[in-house]
Amino acid sequence: MTFPLGYRYSSVYAGIRKVKRDDLALIVTDEPAAAAAIFTTNRVQAAPVRLSRKHLKASKGRVKALLINAGNANCATRTGDKVALSTTTALAKRLKCPVEQVLPSSTGVIGVELNASLITKALPKLVAGLSPDRFDDVSQAILTTDTVRKVAFAEVALQGGVVRIAGMTKGAGMIQPNMATTLGYVLTDAAISPKVLHSMLTKAAEVSYHRLTVDGDTSTNDTLALLANGASGVRVTGKDEMIFEEALSVLMQDLARQIAKDGEGAKKLITIHLTGAADDESAARMGRAIANSPLVKTAIAGSDANWGRILTAAGYSGVAFDPSQVDIYLQGVRVCQGGLAARFNEASLKKKLDQPECEIRFVINGRGKGKATFYTCDLTHGYIDINASYRT
Amino acid sequence: MTFPLGYRYSSVYAGIRKVKRDDLALIVTDEPAAAAAIFTTNRVQAAPVRLSRKHLKASKGRVKALLINAGNANCATRTGDKVALSTTTALAKRLKCPVEQVLPSSTGVIGVELNASLITKALPKLVAGLSPDRFDDVSQAILTTDTVRKVAFAEVALQGGVVRIAGMTKGAGMIQPNMATTLGYVLTDAAISPKVLHSMLTKAAEVSYHRLTVDGDTSTNDTLALLANGASGVRVTGKDEMIFEEALSVLMQDLARQIAKDGEGAKKLITIHLTGAADDESAARMGRAIANSPLVKTAIAGSDANWGRILTAAGYSGVAFDPSQVDIYLQGVRVCQGGLAARFNEASLKKKLDQPECEIRFVINGRGKGKATFYTCDLTHGYIDINASYRT
Repeated sequence: MTFPLGYRYSSVYAGIRKVKRDDLALIVTDEPAAAAAIFTTNRVQAAPVRLSRKHLKASKGRVKALLINAGNANCATRTGDKVALSTTTALAKRLKCPVEQVLPSSTGVIGVELNASLITKALPKLVAGLSPDRFDDVSQAILTTDTVRKVAFAEVALQGGVVRIAGMTKGAGMIQPNMATTLGYVLTDAAISPKVLHSMLTKAAEVSYHRLTVDGDTSTNDTLALLANGASGVRVTGKDEMIFEEALSVLMQDLARQIAKDGEGAKKLITIHLTGAADDESAARMGRAIANSPLVKTAIAGSDANWGRILTAAGYSGVAFDPSQVDIYLQGVRVCQGGLAARFNEASLKKKLDQPECEIRFVINGRGKGKATFYTCDLTHGYIDINASYRT
Repeated sequence: MTFPLGYRYSSVYAGIRKVKRDDLALIVTDEPAAAAAIFTTNRVQAAPVRLSRKHLKASKGRVKALLINAGNANCATRTGDKVALSTTTALAKRLKCPVEQVLPSSTGVIGVELNASLITKALPKLVAGLSPDRFDDVSQAILTTDTVRKVAFAEVALQGGVVRIAGMTKGAGMIQPNMATTLGYVLTDAAISPKVLHSMLTKAAEVSYHRLTVDGDTSTNDTLALLANGASGVRVTGKDEMIFEEALSVLMQDLARQIAKDGEGAKKLITIHLTGAADDESAARMGRAIANSPLVKTAIAGSDANWGRILTAAGYSGVAFDPSQVDIYLQGVRVCQGGLAARFNEASLKKKLDQPECEIRFVINGRGKGKATFYTCDLTHGYIDINASYRT
């Protein structure tokens, strides 16, 4: 597997986070790439989110560089907008590109002033360090409470030749579906117009990032960006669009699963498959209610086949359904049939639920064709340990 | 303070819960009382909820007895409806009242068959034990994971004389606002028509039980019933209606606070005051988002003044507001001014947040008159310990 052509990466420690671990990262495309992005829907938006929106519009979807810092969200601060603008301007000068071709992102604590000079001072070293081989360094530098890097790769064979996609993302808390959650960067060397790219990103996010929850909290900084620099020389058109889109969806689902699996304090990935709802939207609402239920998440943490909580969560999702038509499966074992307790071997299922990946299948029998898959994680002491004193 | 006149109480251990602790309770009014009740809005409704609705309708809001069991929710079981009907029928025979004047409630595990004969066998002893002095026994018997009894009393001086109100309720998990949450029984010896009673209960619930959340999960069994047996001989009319309603609201807010304070694993009661929203409904939505945020709840658990999470939660509540107009106070200390960090003494505030009661004040400056108060609790290891193996 080779990386997408025409991208270079770098990261340094700029002194933003307390721990000495790279906290400033840069992704540059040799030729400006077509770009699309989805941002948080939170009413409170961090300065870099506001500036990225503006830049993307001004550049008509052309991006030269992504500048990312961890350790400080640059949100709800007096100097936020200035910091975002001055650091991207400094980088643009150094890269000799228009400032609107630089998209900034920040992640970390909210409400603490971000010192712009930490970033501008680090830029020479950051730019000097650019290399096609440092993808891994960047995917490491953007992490906060994550315990592992989250990356995914694909090669897609199209009519005009092979194109490559590489994605990196971060978790691990303040994560809730139905919007671009957390930070995610997906790069390809295919040639695709910004407009088509935006449509592809939106559709792929619908079945991946928008089907993910860790704690139901939606960040102020969420950014998911997709760049296509065309360095492969392969233009994606006609039938190839569907093939590429499918590969993109699979890759983004992979990233979403990785975020759920590494949710703060998580010991288990929980995948929820919901079928038989009136439509996909109804299925998604029910799936989201189950995925966000602290009672379901703690039951899975304890390997307790408490299907009543799953049925209950679906019941308060706001979606109309007949509970007597519901079957629920845990790890493939039917625990609820027609809305009632099914017979199953408690001890043997408990063992199956001790696995690091748990599957909940919620089936509404009948003619409904609506379905959805959700990713979440169990709720453990670890989540509380991480979040009880994140700031101090 | 004396109890409302004309009520008797009893409880026994019927063998429904594993632990030998009274699990079957009875409240009887000497003369049938006017009654109103609010039930869960969950799509999945327990058999006793369905039967209570039916009975209340058939009796035109007249109730002789409340039959309550803990340890089994009688929900999502094959025999649920039969169990609810046969046990209330047996009790009605014994009390010589129409069966529709008996309202059943159940709380406990979902999806496990409830053995009706445990209840019917216990009825003779239960009825024989009825006494005006056993209010406390009943308020103890209805508890599940609660650590303390939750009761409240009031005496209200009206034009015609003094009337009494007594309330009991239970928590402690699967609790979410905006519907009658958990079990609650409020008794008065005032004389009020079922219709007026219903209106009073609805209004009082709006500012008490509907402004409460422990974990955002809505139970299948939630029932809140208000009985007025008129034993005081005082009829509530005219101006007295408002006075009584106010006393009822205060009493129910007291019960709601007690539920939040004893939320599963809770170490701290969190009261959230929101002012300056466009209307009360908007204020309530923002309050609910803050109250349900695991990140806010864990921050309070850790006495961490992480106001960014409070602002963020309000930001994803779906309500439009200008973050730059927001001030946030923790324990009376301003931590956020105009959407930005305010200066405060971190160490001294941390100490204040170590108290068992924490207050969040979220002020939107401007002309908005909408306000709401919410009750919730912190999120601790205890919640997870209780819920990881509740069933097994």
